[in-house]
This record gives sequence, C-alpha cells and structure tokens, in this order.
Amino acid sequence: MKISNIDVSSYPNSEKIYIKGSIYPDISVGMRRIKQYPTVEIIDGHRVEHQNPDVVVYDTSGPYTDPDVDIDINIGIPRLRESWIEGRGDTEMLPDITSEYGRKRMDDKSLDAIRFPRKISPRRAVEGKRVTQMHYARKGIITPEMEYVAIRENLNNKELGIDSYVTPEFVRSEIAAGRAIIAANINHPESEPMVIGSAFSVKLNTNIGNSALSSGISEEIQKAVWSCYWGGDTLMDLSTGDNIHETREWIIRNCPVPVGTVPIYQALEKVGGKVSELTWEIYRDTLIEQCEQGVDYFTIHAGVLREHADLVGDRLTGCVSRGGSIMTQWTVLHNQESFLYTHFDEICEILNKYDVAVSLGDGMRPGSTFDANDRAQFLELDILGELTQKAWEHDVQVLIEGPGHVPMHKIRENMERQKRVCHDAPFYTLGPLTTDIAPGYDHITSAIGAAIIGNLGTAMICYVTPKEHLSLPDLEDVRDGVIAYKIAAHAADLAKQYPGADVRDNALSKARYEFRWKDQFNLSLDPERAKQYYLESRRNAPDADDKFCTMCGPNFCAMRISQNIAEKCGQ
Amino acid sequence: MKISNIDVSSYPNSEKIYIKGSIYPDISVGMRRIKQYPTVEIIDGHRVEHQNPDVVVYDTSGPYTDPDVDIDINIGIPRLRESWIEGRGDTEMLPDITSEYGRKRMDDKSLDAIRFPRKISPRRAVEGKRVTQMHYARKGIITPEMEYVAIRENLNNKELGIDSYVTPEFVRSEIAAGRAIIAANINHPESEPMVIGSAFSVKLNTNIGNSALSSGISEEIQKAVWSCYWGGDTLMDLSTGDNIHETREWIIRNCPVPVGTVPIYQALEKVGGKVSELTWEIYRDTLIEQCEQGVDYFTIHAGVLREHADLVGDRLTGCVSRGGSIMTQWTVLHNQESFLYTHFDEICEILNKYDVAVSLGDGMRPGSTFDANDRAQFLELDILGELTQKAWEHDVQVLIEGPGHVPMHKIRENMERQKRVCHDAPFYTLGPLTTDIAPGYDHITSAIGAAIIGNLGTAMICYVTPKEHLSLPDLEDVRDGVIAYKIAAHAADLAKQYPGADVRDNALSKARYEFRWKDQFNLSLDPERAKQYYLESRRNAPDADDKFCTMCGPNFCAMRISQNIAEKCGQ
Repeated sequence: MKISNIDVSSYPNSEKIYIKGSIYPDISVGMRRIKQYPTVEIIDGHRVEHQNPDVVVYDTSGPYTDPDVDIDINIGIPRLRESWIEGRGDTEMLPDITSEYGRKRMDDKSLDAIRFPRKISPRRAVEGKRVTQMHYARKGIITPEMEYVAIRENLNNKELGIDSYVTPEFVRSEIAAGRAIIAANINHPESEPMVIGSAFSVKLNTNIGNSALSSGISEEIQKAVWSCYWGGDTLMDLSTGDNIHETREWIIRNCPVPVGTVPIYQALEKVGGKVSELTWEIYRDTLIEQCEQGVDYFTIHAGVLREHADLVGDRLTGCVSRGGSIMTQWTVLHNQESFLYTHFDEICEILNKYDVAVSLGDGMRPGSTFDANDRAQFLELDILGELTQKAWEHDVQVLIEGPGHVPMHKIRENMERQKRVCHDAPFYTLGPLTTDIAPGYDHITSAIGAAIIGNLGTAMICYVTPKEHLSLPDLEDVRDGVIAYKIAAHAADLAKQYPGADVRDNALSKARYEFRWKDQFNLSLDPERAKQYYLESRRNAPDADDKFCTMCGPNFCAMRISQNIAEKCGQ
Repeated sequence: MKISNIDVSSYPNSEKIYIKGSIYPDISVGMRRIKQYPTVEIIDGHRVEHQNPDVVVYDTSGPYTDPDVDIDINIGIPRLRESWIEGRGDTEMLPDITSEYGRKRMDDKSLDAIRFPRKISPRRAVEGKRVTQMHYARKGIITPEMEYVAIRENLNNKELGIDSYVTPEFVRSEIAAGRAIIAANINHPESEPMVIGSAFSVKLNTNIGNSALSSGISEEIQKAVWSCYWGGDTLMDLSTGDNIHETREWIIRNCPVPVGTVPIYQALEKVGGKVSELTWEIYRDTLIEQCEQGVDYFTIHAGVLREHADLVGDRLTGCVSRGGSIMTQWTVLHNQESFLYTHFDEICEILNKYDVAVSLGDGMRPGSTFDANDRAQFLELDILGELTQKAWEHDVQVLIEGPGHVPMHKIRENMERQKRVCHDAPFYTLGPLTTDIAPGYDHITSAIGAAIIGNLGTAMICYVTPKEHLSLPDLEDVRDGVIAYKIAAHAADLAKQYPGADVRDNALSKARYEFRWKDQFNLSLDPERAKQYYLESRRNAPDADDKFCTMCGPNFCAMRISQNIAEKCGQ
C-alpha cells in the first residue's frame, strides 16, 4: 500500500519477524528486524568486513508490513486474538447488535454504499462474567495478551541474546495492581496487544477523525494505517462529523492497534448538537454501540462536576476540553451532577462485559500555561482518583488523562499528584505544551513537555500535530506529530534507563561514525526523510557512500578526522 | 527586503519602538510593539469594544524592521555603538589592518568583485589599555552597552507600566563576576548589545556559513538577516569554503547581532587543510584578522590536551567537534600540547584589545548519547575551568561551550558540574540532543534538551536544524531551527519564572479564547505559518474571524461552549 508516496508495506532493509510465546506457543509477536551493512576496514591493503548485528525494534505496523499477509480493507486484517478470546469460554456471540441506534443504522439501506461490507457479530461476556484483563490478572491468570506484551516489551529481546527483563508474571502483577492496562476489547481481535504502564516503555497515542468541515472515510483509514506505520501505539477516532458509526467500523476492522473514542461526541451528534437534550439513555446506547464495534478505550469526562462551571469563569481560557465543556454546560443547563458521574457504576458494568478500558478524561485540563495546576484542574483530578477506585471495584482497567498547557516548572507536580490521588493508575497526557506562543509548532512545544513527563512516569503521551489550535491535521502533519512523539517517548525511555532502549541509538551512532549512511537512514525513526535530506544536497553522489556530508564538507568532517586519529594512535 | 517570499522589513501589525536610556539619554533600545484588536462584546444588542494592551517584545531584527532606516547592504547597517566606543577614549583607529593575511586579501585585485565595497579602518585599544566590558564592569563603570541590555532584558518593560527588574547596576555586577557577558567587539559597532548570562532571559545562537560544497555570499547574508528576523540572538559564521574573509566582512557589516566564529577553520584553510602545518603564528594572524573585522566571540578549543587523543579511542563516536578533532590530531602529529593551550595568555592579550569574548569550545563533546558525560568530556571541562580563570585575569569575557548528545537523565550533571568547575561562567550548549535515532528531526530531539538545560541555568542554546548530521541547512531549515529554539528558550524562561516572560503567552491565550485569530497569529513566534495553516483549511473564509477552526468544527469548539457557560453563569 502506498500512502503519500511512501510504500507502507515495508520498512527499508528490514524484515518482519515473529517471536513465539513459551506459555502460549501459538503466540507470534511481530517485530521489525533491521539489517545492517558490514563495517569495512582496509588492513594491509585487504578489505576486511566486520558484520554488524541486526537491530530488532518494537513494531506497531501490524500485518501491513508483512509480505505474507494479503491486506484487503474490505475484509479487514486478520483476527489475531479471536481464538484466545473464544478459548476463555466466558463470552458469547450475540445474534444481533444490542444498541438501538446501531440497529437503526444497520437497517438503513441508504448507508449500504459506505458500510463496511462484512457483517461481524458482536461478542459479550456471558451473564455474570467479567472479561477484563484486570479481572484475569487479579485471579492470578496470565492471559495470552499478557505474554504477548511481555515479549514485546523486551526491547533488548532474545534476538540480541539478552535475557528478558519483562516477564508475563510481571505484566500480570502490574495489571492486577492497576498500574498498567492492556486495552483489548473482545470485539477488536484484530488488535495486537500492547501495554500502557509506567514500568514499561512509554507509548504514544495519535488522534484522527473528521470534523463537520472535513475528511471522508478512506482518508481516515489511510491516516490510521499511516499512524501505525510511523509508530503510533494507539489511535483515537475523534470524529464529530457525518457517518461516525460507519467510519469507525472501517477503522477498527483494519486497525492493528487499540482504538479509543470519546462517546459523548457521538451522543451529541445524535441529539443534533443540543447539549441540553443529552440523556443517560442516549449515552448508554452509544457506549453499547461502540463496545460492540470493538472500541478498546473510552474517554469519559466523569470527573466534571456542577461546581466546575463556576471555576471555569476564573480562567484565562475557560474549559478547552470538548467533552469537558459539553458536560459542564449540561450540568449548568440541568443544574445537576452529570449523568457520567451519577451513572458511573453502570458504565463500568457495561465496560467489563467487553473489556473496554476507561480513560478518565480531564475536562478541566488547562488550555493555557496561565491556567495550569489551578483549582479546577486539581479538583477534577481528585474526583478521577475516586472514580478510579470505583472502576477497579468493577475490574475495569483505568487510564487517567492529563494536561494540556503546563510550563516546565509545573510539570512535576502534575505527575506526583496524579500518582498520589489516582493510586498509581497510568497517566496519559496531552503533551503538555510548555508555552502558548507557537501555534504552527505545537508538536515541538508539547514534545518538550511530553519527554519530561514521560521520564517522570507518564505511561502514554498523546501526540499534538503542527496544526493544533489551527486546523485538522493532514497526512504530513500526522507524520510530523507521530515522529515528534516517538522522539519524546524514546527520549523518556532512555532517561528512565529502560533496558534495551539504547540499542537502537548505539547502532545508529556507530553507523554514523563509520559513514554507513544507509544504515543510519534505516535505523532512524523516519528513514525516508533522513535519506531525502541527505540526497537533496548530493545530487552528484546518489550512492550515499561518501565519508562526509555537505554540512561540514570533506575537509572538516570531525568524524573522519577522528577516525584518522584513532588509526594514528593504533586503536 | 523579501526573503523566501516573506517580507522581513516588518512584523505583522507591529511597530518598531525605541526606549530611551536614563544614564545615557542617547541610548535607544529597539523593541517590537505588537498591537491587538479589541475584544468585542454584544451587551443588550449593542457592540461594546474593550481595548487589549499592546504587547512589547524583545526584538533581534535590528534596523531591518524599522521603516525609517534605509538598508543598503553595500553600505552596511548604522554603526549604533560607534560614538560610545569613541567616547571612552581608550581606543585608536589604525591606519591599516594588522593581519598579514588580511592585507594580502586587501591587495588582491581579483577579489574586488566580491569584496564589501566600503573600506572600514580597524580600531584597537591604545597601548596598555583593556577595552572589555568585563574590564569596565570590574572598575565599577556602567557602560552604555550595560544600560542598553538592562532596558532590553525587562520583558515586562515600562510600556506595560511594570517596574524594571533588571537594572544597569545588576548587569554590571553580573559581568564583573563573570556570570554574564556582552559580546561586543569595538569593530562591530553595528551590533545591538545583548547579554548572555543565567540571570537573564535565555538566548539562542544560530549557525550559518558555507562549506566547500555549498552556498555563496548573498545567500549567507540572507541567512543572517533571516536568522535575526525569526529571533536569533547571536550568529556564528562557520564557513569553511572559499572567500571566508570576504564573506565575513559582508555579514558583519550587515549584522545587528553579535557574530561568532571558530578561527581554527580559517587557519586550516590557510594551510590547505593540512593539520600538521597549522602553527601558532598562522592562528595568531587569523585571530587579529578577525578581531579587526569585528567578530564578537571566538570559539577556541584550548581545552583539548594531548591525552584526549587516547580517550577518543574509547568512544563510540570519537571526537565530533570539528575544531576539537583538528586540535586533537595536531597534538598527536606533533606529540605536544596544542598551541591554543600553551599560548592562551597571549590569545587573551589579543582579545582584550578589541573586546572579543572567548567561547571555550568543547572539543570533546559527546557525539552520541553513549559517550555522554564520559572521562574525555569532563576532563576537558576541568581544563576549561582553569582557562576561564586565566581569561578573567586578562579581563576577557568567557562563555563555556557544552554538549552535544546527552540523554535527559544525564543533563543535570552537565549543568551542575559546569557551574562548579567553571566558576559560574555562562554555559552555551548545542542542544543537547536527547536521542540519536532521529536524523531529519534533530531540531526536536535537541529542543527538548535545550529547554531542560536552559531551565537549569544554561545562558545560551545553540540551535540545531532539521538537516543536522545530513547536510547544510537552507533558509527553511534555519527558520525551523530558530523557531524550535525560540520555543526552547522561552519555555525555559517561563520555567525560570523570568519576570514578564509570560506576558506574551497570556496575551496570545486570551486572543485564542476570544477567537481574535489575527491577534493569535501576530503574537505567535511565526505569524506567517500560523496564518497559513489556518487559512489553508478555510478557503471560504479568508477573513479569519470565525468562532471555531476546522480542528473541531463549529459544534465541538470547547472554547465557544465554554464562553456560553461563562455567559450562562453570569461571568
């Protein structure tokens, strides 16, 4: 598949490999193995080659980069987890979808043209069962999903002859304690399990989705595949325009990473955008609709209380969370606590029937550095802590969403307070943006904050694209956003001294020092762009094998001189 | 003047203002005053306008954005500081340039075509005098340069009715203590004084310059003006190709910010690139040549010792500093300490005749995260501390250059150790880059490190462009690099709680909340790009006055909903 002129069906000089499970031998964890060229030395006039080891890296691209898998978006990607889910024997296939709205859409012939062509029956826990990874973990059960992520998290994996750091039992214990989650709806068996928790490598989420003014279904699928290709670990579909239901079905059936949504957006569409007409019944039906489609985590702004409305007025930029502003308005219009808060137990009892994680939304996140760490924000955080414990009572896995706009000196307080009041549930932050003055470059203002808070213990960072505050991102913006956040997440992994995180850095640096340009490109986060920048300036030397670049020219290359010194010193 | 389709002779909806001195009434400090549109409210059906205050910001663009100054690059920009320098009565005009090489170039008729057309006589301290800002500061003298930067550093300046934080006396005391410098060669009177020190706002340096493979004189001047327009505080000319001498003259005569160089590059060109043939005499002549042209600070890798050559061999990426690798090689070839180290006192006695600051180069900076904080690096830092004290004995102002590639958890040690062993001399770091795996995006890998180390006390950060490691930056790369570093520097100022730093953030955030799109653009670091991104998606609404953007669309704009809530709540 080619997207924006880049072949997303393979990575350069790389192959897809699969690592088998031990507890569950039918597990195959896809990884990317990057091959390297040898280091060449001339000794006594003879060319001597020293092999350089393959570098195996975490791979979020799923089957798209496996040449042995035929991809047809009309069929969807392979249903990797289906047999594991069936094997547990605690779920049942439903004859029809449960949601009233979902059934109405299904019966609407006018939607046939845009509908995903395969009908997939939904699955639900059998009466009286909870089917969440947290439920199993607490029972002491290591699921295939847990072994899968354990293998995946060993960045210095067996391919490199290094012992495993992450064991399946460690994954289980982190999930049981609520310190990590595997977002894995039983209705999204296409998703490759991944873990979000501060003891693991830092993950990044990307947002896609149309708004009333913009893009269509095929563009959204492209964005999803594109996001996975560049390294997005999870994907939120934030669509607010037409045909949300149908668009989502296409995305989920073709998405190898967990998919998140903010159900209140669709609920609001259902009442024609009139906040006052939102009801628990409509919201509940929307939750079930999306649970049965396979959404893996829901952002739910259940921490927004009636009293927040008063605090918003004291702010420079009010409430900048869409879901938060909708719920705040609802509490004002109805003069009562939101149905998300009052019905939270019922919500959890729906979620644990499908294993959908709740991502407790920060409706009061600061939208400017001025508003950072204020009373509205921290009051809500306290409520999120309370709801966390409630969700855990129902065995529902929990993420806590965090800001937003926060100057650097106020970042640490966010992390420490979140850990304390939310009982070590994984933190999932948007940036934070460390200054307000750079619209057009907020992938950078926020990558700074994301790297810092990732190092402090945030489990997942939500990307920001260059178009933040200005318009919807296009494909190139998604790429820029993902790479900026891969940088932030990886910088945090290095700073956390996460085992094996430095293998890729060291291999790339060695390649750089030895002028193995192709290896330098192939090992980089964006091989295409690195190569393009290099070659643009070397039109006469497309081979990319010279022992210098145009930055310093041939006579001033420190690395070349440095090698000469090493040779002189007999090293 | 238009560069790359952008009119660099003004900023949008801004005017150039000048703030007068008190001690020296003839001082006029140029600032940029950004005007704002009023906030419009409809009260009882009537349109009510609330004025928003002008925002006055630090301005590095010099006379280029003053419509009252005619710019002719063949004449050079106004010589702002000339009368101040003359007024001190401790310098003299020389009948001819002192450097042998410089005279040879001057006599070479074949260079007339590329030579800067005006002949400017060099100025030097009269016999027995030292003319450095540090010398005056230690004598208790507040110079016009010191009052100039004091006015400039008050980001919350008098225009806003806020008292001054930075006083001229405070500037003097910081310079006397060596904790800050004003790089201001008496032969570069075109330069607007600026201060580099941890007690002041964080500054950023940009690098331009041709290499043997690339660009010409006019392109380098364009890059210099371009860099100042976007916010570069100082500018290093790192040219290594042809006509270094002539290119530099053009740049200095037209540059409103301090200019730095690495003299060893030119010295090496003079001996045909043969490191073994470098001598103290050639280097000395090069220093004098550049002192008399007006270079404001020299990077001198005097801390590279013979023993470093052995340590380089233990590294993953050897020595990646061009100057450092040259000097290491020299010490090996000659098996003796470098002439930069052995002649350091003489170097200082040259520099204090012109007031050129020394920027002690980190020849052993790590070129990979693997090599960060190693013995070679810290051994050199100790030597730089020793040389700092030596320079100060000669009243020479000192900067200390720092790394390089450093993972986040090793950044703090760099700063704390530099402060300790270099006696609080200002630190000037290249990034640091927090991971090695993102060639093509190293403006981002390094902006993360730069923001962090800026917050910890680094006085100036040296930008990195997207093309780092790959090729020479073009104009768009310079822009991307400068903005990334403006972000890092400003994020650090906010985190340092530098007085007034948040004025611009708060104004922009208020404009954003009130949908004053034009103000949001005008207050941003790159108004052109912000506007472009917004308008690209709004082809039908070029007026940019709508109360939403395509990111969320009209129904899901949290800010709009939030305003409705505020109105509902009677706020």
